[in-house]
Amino acid sequence: MSILLENISIIPMTGSADFIEKGYLVIDGQYIRQVASGEAPAGDYEITIDGTNRVVLPGMVNAHTHAAMTLLRSYADDMPLMEWLETKIWPLEEKLTGDDVYWGTMLAITEMIKSGTTCFADMYFFMDQAAQAVEKSGIRAVLSRGMVGVGPSAELALTESSELVGKWHRRAKNRITVMLGPHAPYTCPPDYLRKVIDLASELGMALNIHIAETAGEREDMIKMYGKSPVKHLEACGLFERAVLAAHCVHVDEEDIALLKKYQVGVVHNPESNMKLASGIAPVPQMLNAGIPVALGTDGASSNNNLDMLGELRTAAFLHKVNTMNPTVLPAYQALQMATVNGGIALGLEQEIGQLQPGMKADLIIMSLEAAHMIPRYDIVANIVYSGQASDVETVIIDGQVVMQDRQILAFDETEVLEQAKRCAARLIEA
Amino acid sequence: MSILLENISIIPMTGSADFIEKGYLVIDGQYIRQVASGEAPAGDYEITIDGTNRVVLPGMVNAHTHAAMTLLRSYADDMPLMEWLETKIWPLEEKLTGDDVYWGTMLAITEMIKSGTTCFADMYFFMDQAAQAVEKSGIRAVLSRGMVGVGPSAELALTESSELVGKWHRRAKNRITVMLGPHAPYTCPPDYLRKVIDLASELGMALNIHIAETAGEREDMIKMYGKSPVKHLEACGLFERAVLAAHCVHVDEEDIALLKKYQVGVVHNPESNMKLASGIAPVPQMLNAGIPVALGTDGASSNNNLDMLGELRTAAFLHKVNTMNPTVLPAYQALQMATVNGGIALGLEQEIGQLQPGMKADLIIMSLEAAHMIPRYDIVANIVYSGQASDVETVIIDGQVVMQDRQILAFDETEVLEQAKRCAARLIEA
Repeated sequence: MSILLENISIIPMTGSADFIEKGYLVIDGQYIRQVASGEAPAGDYEITIDGTNRVVLPGMVNAHTHAAMTLLRSYADDMPLMEWLETKIWPLEEKLTGDDVYWGTMLAITEMIKSGTTCFADMYFFMDQAAQAVEKSGIRAVLSRGMVGVGPSAELALTESSELVGKWHRRAKNRITVMLGPHAPYTCPPDYLRKVIDLASELGMALNIHIAETAGEREDMIKMYGKSPVKHLEACGLFERAVLAAHCVHVDEEDIALLKKYQVGVVHNPESNMKLASGIAPVPQMLNAGIPVALGTDGASSNNNLDMLGELRTAAFLHKVNTMNPTVLPAYQALQMATVNGGIALGLEQEIGQLQPGMKADLIIMSLEAAHMIPRYDIVANIVYSGQASDVETVIIDGQVVMQDRQILAFDETEVLEQAKRCAARLIEA
Repeated sequence: MSILLENISIIPMTGSADFIEKGYLVIDGQYIRQVASGEAPAGDYEITIDGTNRVVLPGMVNAHTHAAMTLLRSYADDMPLMEWLETKIWPLEEKLTGDDVYWGTMLAITEMIKSGTTCFADMYFFMDQAAQAVEKSGIRAVLSRGMVGVGPSAELALTESSELVGKWHRRAKNRITVMLGPHAPYTCPPDYLRKVIDLASELGMALNIHIAETAGEREDMIKMYGKSPVKHLEACGLFERAVLAAHCVHVDEEDIALLKKYQVGVVHNPESNMKLASGIAPVPQMLNAGIPVALGTDGASSNNNLDMLGELRTAAFLHKVNTMNPTVLPAYQALQMATVNGGIALGLEQEIGQLQPGMKADLIIMSLEAAHMIPRYDIVANIVYSGQASDVETVIIDGQVVMQDRQILAFDETEVLEQAKRCAARLIEA
């Protein structure tokens, strides 16, 4: 399949000076072949898209999700964290079936495609069903079976993780990557973590984990191990593998230096951290330390949406007021977090996050025609500070047109919404 | 004109227990006549709207804007405040003409209607043209000529304010209310404020002012007058009149007590305060003190959008993390700020902000059909934590259908966008 986008503004995310006011982009099969200013060369393209009043940019990378938790959206909000988990979230999660996870993941994918996300990093359970949803939908994903090292499922989680790797790693035309997913230092004791790390080494896998989400976690780790969560995990050998680390809210300068040293893929989840009152991650300090911090929405029960445009705007706003400095996290840097930094954090920087010849064709076309996108003195600022999910018109993933003019082509959206409603109704009835 | 909405969920904003799962709402002329659950009575309605999978709620009140600043959207971002004002915003504002303000205000109104705002409180200049835009568009507004008490335009601003009152107060079928708009304590010396207050008394008008937006303003007022901005304004006699006060970021307990005592309409502008790094207003403390804090976007050059759904979500998130308490500013209270509290702050609580028989028919119909609105365990939480501007389908103001199925009926949207682009192009060329 060859596709030509022409007469289009281009934000390649290869550097803020690389903006192309009017140019063209050629896709050949799964790959981007050309990105340039000016008129497109004559050629025999199967699809030609006119990009007048449009901009193309890399698809966004939602670097931390629990996709099927869309089924819990608006079920429980505005509650203290432990009460929320113990009386609402965990009891409902107990009832989830593989069928629920399939349709909940499809619901999440629908929302993500419609808001310009082309790749997500997920940690949940029934991951075989999650992988089926990824394969069906055409999206790209990094999948991890969440592993808790205490209780009856600890060993099962190791087995299921191995199976997930065997069955799905680099499958679905290479759109699926698997990581091992030890949940967090407070749910995975050191000996269990050792087993996970050894399994990851044996299989050649990276790790996906939550680190230092709450002040309580940090205090507990210091009480139990005499070390901050990051230092404790270093001592456990976690950083022997490549690591994707969600949150990193309660980290100090020494922790940040370690995260940098081990090239940990840090994922900032501002809306979840705000809604659950977890705290404000020191993102400007991490960026200044050279960590290419990525961005995620977290699950839909603590956000409650998967809209990365909203998320990157929140990040830009939050760190300005938190540092009392309006020059912190400028628009381009916020957009980097949602695109190129996501590719780096997921270890996929050779494939996604920028529009460059040779990279996978994961990209989104946004309309600039709505009132809120006028005037257009600076299109990056327009996207970051006033763009809406509904401005995302066309989504191409792995060279396939997954959504065109806001119509999903890759699967039946109506069926997904109806099945998700059916699953949700059963969950609260049962 | 009589309109029936049937088979619709209703959030009347008269109390969180008053949610109607399935009901109907009857509009007769400018007014709401009936709001009830169940089947609609037989009747002869000129328009019948089926609300299946829809929810109706009061139109949102954007209680602090500088509407025509949409023309400066994305012109200058991520800059230190004074450099931003002195090198970018003020020089461009110098060039604005009445024609610019007309089309800039129309652009703002277009964006506001399309995101569910039915009333806004504006402070700017060339307000005759702003009033013409309000009249033309069908929206409701409170208009103030911004008055700066130093420099050559000080006296002119008094004259223009009187003229604005005479020409526009309670005009456009009562959709326009005028307030006098002394800009801020740091731009209006006490003797000038006295003139403004006396004029307001003479004309029977309320006042619209910025108070305590930055820490610098508070420090300066204390240095100059030995008093906080609120106390200084009290001493100047400001609160002899009803007051609409934007920002109130840097206020202490005593200030809050005074704002409560004088029933000041406080307007929180979280995104502007975050983007400009002005600080975080003590909104939970003000709400706890019994002040019905309203919500605004501020101008589009410090936000950069006029989307009240995004704004109320930001408010709910920001105060949770700032107080480290996830139960602070729950969904319903955030929606109150954007609706009923807006009506109170503007002195229009008998007319707008709730869906009740006898109140003006200012309301919005939102679709619940998109992926991000599923499931729907709690529709208020859906709206607050995952709703998007694009979910707003139909907007009725003063009993008139201003937007239907996202098509603006009241004016030519395409013309507005083209004229706004023309004005913006001239501004940066000139």
